[in-house]
Amino acid sequence: MAKNEKLVSSITSMDTDFAQWYTDICKKAELIEYTSVKGCMVIRPYGYAIWENIQHILDTMFKETGHENVCLPMFIPESLLNKEKDHVEGFAPEVAWVTYGGKEKLEERLCVRPTSETLFCEHYANIIHSYRDLPKLYNQWVSVVRWEKTTRPFLRSREFLWQEGHTIHATAEEAIIETEQMLNIYADFCEKALAMPVIKGKKTESDKFAGAVSTYAIEALMHDGKALQAGTSHYFGDGFAKAFDITYTDKNNTIQIPHQTSWGVTTRLIGAIIMTHGDDNGLVLPPAVAPIQVVIVPVAQHKEGVLEKANEIYNTLKAAGIRVKLDDSDNSPGWKYSEYEMRGVPVRLEIGPRDIEENHCVAVSRHNREKVFLSLDNLAESVKERLQAVHDGMYAKALANREEKTYSCTSMEEIKEMLATKGDGFVKAMWCGDEECEDKVKAETGVGSRCIPLEHEDISDKCVCCGKPAKHMVVWGKAY
Amino acid sequence: MAKNEKLVSSITSMDTDFAQWYTDICKKAELIEYTSVKGCMVIRPYGYAIWENIQHILDTMFKETGHENVCLPMFIPESLLNKEKDHVEGFAPEVAWVTYGGKEKLEERLCVRPTSETLFCEHYANIIHSYRDLPKLYNQWVSVVRWEKTTRPFLRSREFLWQEGHTIHATAEEAIIETEQMLNIYADFCEKALAMPVIKGKKTESDKFAGAVSTYAIEALMHDGKALQAGTSHYFGDGFAKAFDITYTDKNNTIQIPHQTSWGVTTRLIGAIIMTHGDDNGLVLPPAVAPIQVVIVPVAQHKEGVLEKANEIYNTLKAAGIRVKLDDSDNSPGWKYSEYEMRGVPVRLEIGPRDIEENHCVAVSRHNREKVFLSLDNLAESVKERLQAVHDGMYAKALANREEKTYSCTSMEEIKEMLATKGDGFVKAMWCGDEECEDKVKAETGVGSRCIPLEHEDISDKCVCCGKPAKHMVVWGKAY
Repeated sequence: MAKNEKLVSSITSMDTDFAQWYTDICKKAELIEYTSVKGCMVIRPYGYAIWENIQHILDTMFKETGHENVCLPMFIPESLLNKEKDHVEGFAPEVAWVTYGGKEKLEERLCVRPTSETLFCEHYANIIHSYRDLPKLYNQWVSVVRWEKTTRPFLRSREFLWQEGHTIHATAEEAIIETEQMLNIYADFCEKALAMPVIKGKKTESDKFAGAVSTYAIEALMHDGKALQAGTSHYFGDGFAKAFDITYTDKNNTIQIPHQTSWGVTTRLIGAIIMTHGDDNGLVLPPAVAPIQVVIVPVAQHKEGVLEKANEIYNTLKAAGIRVKLDDSDNSPGWKYSEYEMRGVPVRLEIGPRDIEENHCVAVSRHNREKVFLSLDNLAESVKERLQAVHDGMYAKALANREEKTYSCTSMEEIKEMLATKGDGFVKAMWCGDEECEDKVKAETGVGSRCIPLEHEDISDKCVCCGKPAKHMVVWGKAY
Repeated sequence: MAKNEKLVSSITSMDTDFAQWYTDICKKAELIEYTSVKGCMVIRPYGYAIWENIQHILDTMFKETGHENVCLPMFIPESLLNKEKDHVEGFAPEVAWVTYGGKEKLEERLCVRPTSETLFCEHYANIIHSYRDLPKLYNQWVSVVRWEKTTRPFLRSREFLWQEGHTIHATAEEAIIETEQMLNIYADFCEKALAMPVIKGKKTESDKFAGAVSTYAIEALMHDGKALQAGTSHYFGDGFAKAFDITYTDKNNTIQIPHQTSWGVTTRLIGAIIMTHGDDNGLVLPPAVAPIQVVIVPVAQHKEGVLEKANEIYNTLKAAGIRVKLDDSDNSPGWKYSEYEMRGVPVRLEIGPRDIEENHCVAVSRHNREKVFLSLDNLAESVKERLQAVHDGMYAKALANREEKTYSCTSMEEIKEMLATKGDGFVKAMWCGDEECEDKVKAETGVGSRCIPLEHEDISDKCVCCGKPAKHMVVWGKAY
């Protein structure tokens, strides 16, 4: 070990304690740090750079589909929050209240936005008059606050970063198309950028967003067999519009009520990445969002020509648009290997005197530790192919894990048995549509309804709980 | 006027009522909208797109100089805010206090960050141990809250968007270099991206940031002759580090105290753009941050080939990376001219049947209404040159305005006379360094010290107020 080299300390194994393993990665990969603000965290540069990459890709997808960014206030007056009945019931219990401005008590208290439907509605009521003003396809990248009792980095915190899309349309049909479009964008993003397979589905009545007609969600399965809701898209009908008195004049000069949607993903996606791809050596990042896609580790770097060649490779890859880092610090190669494995860098390139002689370098994929030799000719191209192969491999691995942990069951007994013998996972089982059965499945087996997948499968024709005719195939699971 | 065409309503003239002219532009150019949240505003898509362009350019400059983005909590516990004496005195009177989380009263109240020095200090105390951990060059793009009594869009609002850089260094020297570097970056940005000349200077003792050893600022002159502080950069010395117990071990294993800086610009820059470049026809945007750089207005668009050619031009410019819009709506060309003048689009291209015949189009610069013919051959290149010429022209115009309104004075009488006869502006006058004189100048003439320019000028060798030997040349002005 070189002088001044600090040890890369190991982390708890995920089989020993999955929750501790998760927290260890958040800390050791330097994604977050705790603060004296209870339930809130610092997102450190490496964690924030992942979020910036997520933002950049999603924002481009939003803009390509005609959405515009805006910024609304972070405060909501209590009277405004109270305007839509279901909505306020859902959110009021968990908001933070501002009651003083300086030394003066406010006449009306303000909550820090837990979500911004009410503010968007007020704004839409101000700016929408005619059919010519529709649709408005707005989004904002902000943070929101929900006063959670128990918190965990990225998964549940009192303040979290997100984007919230809020759109308003002339017709129900248009709004429903928008709701579905955004769900598809989220699913595509998760699969193509995060290498994370998701199930697209509809939430049951009991699990809908406060104020929505219908809530769609994408559900992913984490490595421990628990489900994680990775994004939601809501269709509101005209409920909010009525509560906030938003109307427009159509082409025939008749007053009409518009229809709305909202949709969001949060920094929770970083938690999803950790728990989908991570292993006992640390984080494993999908290339599309990795702050460093390739790290170059020189071997025997004191020998003539090694650092020179490493720099040459660095410049080649950088010029090709690859996010590359060359670590020429005096730490040992072994230390560096561990460090960048902990940080989940998708591809490591090793280059030493012998490699240079043979005009190649060694490329090691983080997710499966596969080693290949890459010729130094056309290296940028072959590294790009490597990154694509890593993405594909990560996706296949995550999908295989989900398939292995997905159980089709036709009875309550079978659900219990599968969970007991195979561990937590997704359970596919039929449901009659009755909330009582939904509750009973959860009470007796521990798995709640995650969603009714858009892609239907016929497991049987009877409700897994009551045996009456089934209306839906539901994916059940234990949720984060 | 075409059917359904709405009138572009005119705005108050700036000579009639500058403040109303300003507000009219904010509303009519659709930059902002008011809300029921007092003192806060909606930044609408067109306004937010300007901010996104500002962010993109500045963020690139920050990253090129080694800075990393992070995200710290929006709340600060009262005890944390109280740790640095000067700082809390400066900010406590104007913070918003959260006292309840849901139905429960908080044990300790939290303020919504008015600025984040205290949180960064707490974080630095956690993560800095050795000289190897230094420097940390952090920045965050967030919103902050200050409970202002009187507010105006962009210039002063209870919530505003900004970036706050917070850096920590091993030595005072390094920290001072950083403070100056960031001031230079801000000044370069204002001149090169916003076409706005600024004076770089140091604030006097009475005008320093709460907790700073020294505060540097860039000062711009608005069209009405008032000064606007467009960005600040603070050197903190080791005051915060001592208050928050941040130390590090140097190479000789000795405990040392690090030195800090912070620096920020806000959405106020959008206000500065309006008041530097705007005119009685509306907004005038510098090309670098204009959401639409070029608008194409077809003339006699019903005639054969016109829309086709307009689309061809659109595609050519778009492919060249120009932010271009083609307005082929059924509004009249005249209406469109007014609309995009109101929105400050830097260059308008008019293309009609006769232009097509002559293989050219008409390019009109927003800031001076200059019309030129541009050949349709190599149009992307000539439009880019045009945009550069517009930038240069806008900068020259703004600089000429500032020069015209800058008065070198050697007596109090002269200051009063210049302001009375020539109107508000920058006053250059010598100062002995005594706070009493500083206050007296303000009380008697109405202009306060804006900054001590880094570029010194010898107006005289005596204080303009007391006649004692002068220590500094000060730029004085009425401030926004």
